[in-house]
Amino acid sequence: MNKIITIGREFGSGGREFGRRLAEELHYEYYDKEIITEIAKHTSLSEEYIKQVVECKPHHLYPITIGHSINFVESYQVNQIQQIFEAQCEILKNLAMKSNCVIVGRCADYILKDFHPFRIFVYANIDSRIKRCMERKEEDENYTYAKWKKKINKIDSNRAKYYGFYAEAKWGDKTNYDLCINTTDTNIKEIVPVIAKIFKD
Amino acid sequence: MNKIITIGREFGSGGREFGRRLAEELHYEYYDKEIITEIAKHTSLSEEYIKQVVECKPHHLYPITIGHSINFVESYQVNQIQQIFEAQCEILKNLAMKSNCVIVGRCADYILKDFHPFRIFVYANIDSRIKRCMERKEEDENYTYAKWKKKINKIDSNRAKYYGFYAEAKWGDKTNYDLCINTTDTNIKEIVPVIAKIFKD
Repeated sequence: MNKIITIGREFGSGGREFGRRLAEELHYEYYDKEIITEIAKHTSLSEEYIKQVVECKPHHLYPITIGHSINFVESYQVNQIQQIFEAQCEILKNLAMKSNCVIVGRCADYILKDFHPFRIFVYANIDSRIKRCMERKEEDENYTYAKWKKKINKIDSNRAKYYGFYAEAKWGDKTNYDLCINTTDTNIKEIVPVIAKIFKD
Repeated sequence: MNKIITIGREFGSGGREFGRRLAEELHYEYYDKEIITEIAKHTSLSEEYIKQVVECKPHHLYPITIGHSINFVESYQVNQIQQIFEAQCEILKNLAMKSNCVIVGRCADYILKDFHPFRIFVYANIDSRIKRCMERKEEDENYTYAKWKKKINKIDSNRAKYYGFYAEAKWGDKTNYDLCINTTDTNIKEIVPVIAKIFKD
């Protein structure tokens, strides 16, 4: 059976970078945003819409179809959301069967439970996460500390709702993971080779 | 500065064995029950009494002095508890200054925070912990599943109270640790050399 590592992560903890570097270090495949692209191909829905769905709790989404009764709109939307989740499950299972891999987010720990993935959760204190976001400066570079804090909490709240909805478990609760790694004040580039040793023979 | 690894652990998770084996693997000193013996030497109190104090929340202890007014008894007892904690702090700091070491329990992560210890928390699901206790059979070998469950929960509740009282933080909350390791259905002997790699150059 292939070796599957799933990464859950708090926003700003460096979890995505951790996953990418871990995959590089181990010569495993790495999947993150690629999964959204695959779902789009499977469902004929736009990547933007899929991203919106997988980052929010389903019933918080706004209707995207108008001109029908609310019930019809809601039912149509629920079907789409279900369709996206089913596509995601299928894609993840196919990837898991293909080769050793690191998968970031996407409830992969839950969806792939029959593949016995090694489940990592990456977290850090709020100051460290805000600092990391500010240093990254990829987007929203003019955000203040307070604005970053609000954004981080909002994103994590959505992740928790999404995970709670599908996995029926508490996102970030250590009992759902094999290893929880605190990245407060650490350099991801430096800790990855250290953690990677765990997976090397 | 010496390398200090502190281990917090749920009862039955194999945390103590984990700490002992990790120390062996790394050739670090290992401290666990030895600390109680040292406190006894420092305070002239019995090891049994000290053990009772460090495993319970202070105000849950029964008076050990009788024949005085309750207030006097309580005040006397509070002084002893304080004396034990102060001795514990002094001993732990001396040990941390002496050599690289692994310390199990004793709020060491909190007491030694100025030494920047690497803080590990070891946990497992309840079934796995009960199974481990039953297999160990060092004591209470005739306990039923239900009785073990009750005992485990009681001990962990006391640990949480003790930690909460002194460290003013939530025992077992991942934010207080650098690494949280789930030992559910794992063999401690097998995982220690893997985790030890993290600490080897």
